[in-house]
Amino acid sequence: MRYSYSDFGNKFLKQTGIGQLMDDLGNPPPGSCMLGGGNPALIPEVSAVWKEIVSKQIESGAMEKILGSYESPAGIRELRERLASVFSEESGSEISPEQIAVTNGSQNAFYFLLNFFSGRFPDGRKRKILFPILPEYIGYTDQTLEEGSFLSFAPDIRETGDRSYKYFISKNKFDSYPDWKREAGCICVSRPTNPTGNVITDEELSFLISKSAEVDIPLLVDNAYGFPFPGVVFKTASLVHKPGMIQGFSLSKLGLPGARTGFILGDVETISMLHRANSVINLTNANPGQFIALELFRSGLWKNLCREVIQPFYRKKTLFARETILRRWNSSIDYRIHESEGAFFLWIWVKNLSLSVSELYPILKEAGAVVVPGKTFFPGADPNWSHREECFRLSFVREDKEIEEGIVRIGRVLEKFSK
Amino acid sequence: MRYSYSDFGNKFLKQTGIGQLMDDLGNPPPGSCMLGGGNPALIPEVSAVWKEIVSKQIESGAMEKILGSYESPAGIRELRERLASVFSEESGSEISPEQIAVTNGSQNAFYFLLNFFSGRFPDGRKRKILFPILPEYIGYTDQTLEEGSFLSFAPDIRETGDRSYKYFISKNKFDSYPDWKREAGCICVSRPTNPTGNVITDEELSFLISKSAEVDIPLLVDNAYGFPFPGVVFKTASLVHKPGMIQGFSLSKLGLPGARTGFILGDVETISMLHRANSVINLTNANPGQFIALELFRSGLWKNLCREVIQPFYRKKTLFARETILRRWNSSIDYRIHESEGAFFLWIWVKNLSLSVSELYPILKEAGAVVVPGKTFFPGADPNWSHREECFRLSFVREDKEIEEGIVRIGRVLEKFSK
Repeated sequence: MRYSYSDFGNKFLKQTGIGQLMDDLGNPPPGSCMLGGGNPALIPEVSAVWKEIVSKQIESGAMEKILGSYESPAGIRELRERLASVFSEESGSEISPEQIAVTNGSQNAFYFLLNFFSGRFPDGRKRKILFPILPEYIGYTDQTLEEGSFLSFAPDIRETGDRSYKYFISKNKFDSYPDWKREAGCICVSRPTNPTGNVITDEELSFLISKSAEVDIPLLVDNAYGFPFPGVVFKTASLVHKPGMIQGFSLSKLGLPGARTGFILGDVETISMLHRANSVINLTNANPGQFIALELFRSGLWKNLCREVIQPFYRKKTLFARETILRRWNSSIDYRIHESEGAFFLWIWVKNLSLSVSELYPILKEAGAVVVPGKTFFPGADPNWSHREECFRLSFVREDKEIEEGIVRIGRVLEKFSK
Repeated sequence: MRYSYSDFGNKFLKQTGIGQLMDDLGNPPPGSCMLGGGNPALIPEVSAVWKEIVSKQIESGAMEKILGSYESPAGIRELRERLASVFSEESGSEISPEQIAVTNGSQNAFYFLLNFFSGRFPDGRKRKILFPILPEYIGYTDQTLEEGSFLSFAPDIRETGDRSYKYFISKNKFDSYPDWKREAGCICVSRPTNPTGNVITDEELSFLISKSAEVDIPLLVDNAYGFPFPGVVFKTASLVHKPGMIQGFSLSKLGLPGARTGFILGDVETISMLHRANSVINLTNANPGQFIALELFRSGLWKNLCREVIQPFYRKKTLFARETILRRWNSSIDYRIHESEGAFFLWIWVKNLSLSVSELYPILKEAGAVVVPGKTFFPGADPNWSHREECFRLSFVREDKEIEEGIVRIGRVLEKFSK
């Protein structure tokens, strides 16, 4: 080691979960079936919209300012106004532009939020982020400035069919572990959940709102795959916004991951803090994503794109992936697929394996199939809980042929290592 | 206050220096002469290049992937290779792509770097960032995770003419305050310096390299306005890269502030840490700036743009601004202008004022001239040093007419408040 690094720096001396995932995405072994990543599909109807918007920005001369100017670190004012209208209309709650922050993607926004509400507090105490249901998004895992900042509750697991199951919030955990009231600085959940495709019900959401209100902490909801855009949800549910909630949204899964643009909706004070943190840490936001979004929301085009193109596209993909597994995997494999209620992934639970899924990961890579092992999706979980090593995430974004080939390769490995 | 916020969060409850600057930039009082900001000029020859590159990306179909894919959090491989060639050629040192990180702007990169090398360390000690010369960039001021993380040395001030002066590194401070060896985790300097337009000499740079090598800490150099791009330097100097240096570069002052793309050149270990921090905190980089840069460096076009267009443009502007001040300000004002050796600003020192510059700021705004008061450019300085309240930064980026009108308005206020 050439230099002495701070505690903050030392965290990054070793590879992180999200880092490994992004590395594997960036440098796939040749010939692999890439069922690991979170990259959205390149849907021609969607790309055509970006092309048209950007072409117009060039023709009108707007591109000069888009690339050549700093906009406010709070985000472009008109974009915040348009978003306030969209969120008001979709949730039925009245929302003002002052409740909205534009950020360089929702990953960066959650770095700010998770650290606003966990770690060391002025009263000398430490507080944690409460995940009321596991598994949860891999990207949160290394974000906290303080070590040991996660508190999490294992879910209730219910089998919903021969090869199907679903996680539910285990409500009695809130009673059996009352210390959460003292320990938690916020409650955090993604909806749909990355990696499981679970969409916690409107009723579960109400339960979490009431729990966070009990102790005056916010409920953070990450809607990266959810409402109102891209709206990749396969069951009846809706955007809910109530006081006490702080919610994240992203353009990435709508098809613009390269733009790095996200939004946060919350109370005016926390939103002002996000603006300030953004100016100190990022100076301001990238413009290309903001100006494309402005056009999408001005024209109302986003709604048709989400409902007529994007959601049906992924609904077809999830059905195809599920049917392929049922058709191609040997019945000796003791697997269950989580109910696919949203997002881009199947979450697969395999019992009676002779190796842990972490141990199978390099074998699967060798066999030409990249998935994401489950372990990293359990922040704050009991390390002895064997379920963590029995699951993996499989993306259904790629071409059908690649999905099928990948599923076949995975099936061969699982069969070989089934007890 | 609705919620309890962490120590990290509490920092952002109040307005910050850079936040105020960005707010004023985003919401200027109508009719003001905007001589405050760091926005580069919209130079038609420069905008034409962006327009051509983006048009080609649309025609070739490349735009689909630029907007629709995640690239590696390390940055696009070919871009890092091209940058390694450019830096090798310009500095005469051999530089590999593994020594280069792409980031979402250099502001964000410095957030990582300043916190890698200051704050709490594994040995239980705290370390600080040593600024070997003041004034220094406003944007560093609120970036450290730990309070009180700045150690700084006041400069030697030498008058270089009737109305001119220049700051030099006060080398004997390194001897008279030997505790810097124990306290400093890194040394940090911007070159050209924002706000002063000072370009520390190659000899001063060598001195800092040797000082940091004495105690095995890195020397961070921020080249946002400097070599090799945009190369807004008005005296003979060059890009120097030696072991022990970690250097920042940006596309912003080249004319792409809306893209938020920057680069760091350093040792392989620190660069790997930046990749990992980037994936945890930002997921990855925005693509539009990266792909424009790729085309600039592939074609070699950047060199002509910097040397034939951008540098001459700003050289003309600085001469105009200086001459306007000399011509239009009443000689009763006891002012000196720092030697304008680079960047976009004149740094003006006014003695014998009846109010501090902080007190004059709202009066100047009221009079229709926005500048940046000097105080925030003195991180870690002795708060009793009166020089902090005698200086301000004046940008010469805007149209000549606006610069002249602004200078006249400022002159009237200064005259009124001169003793």
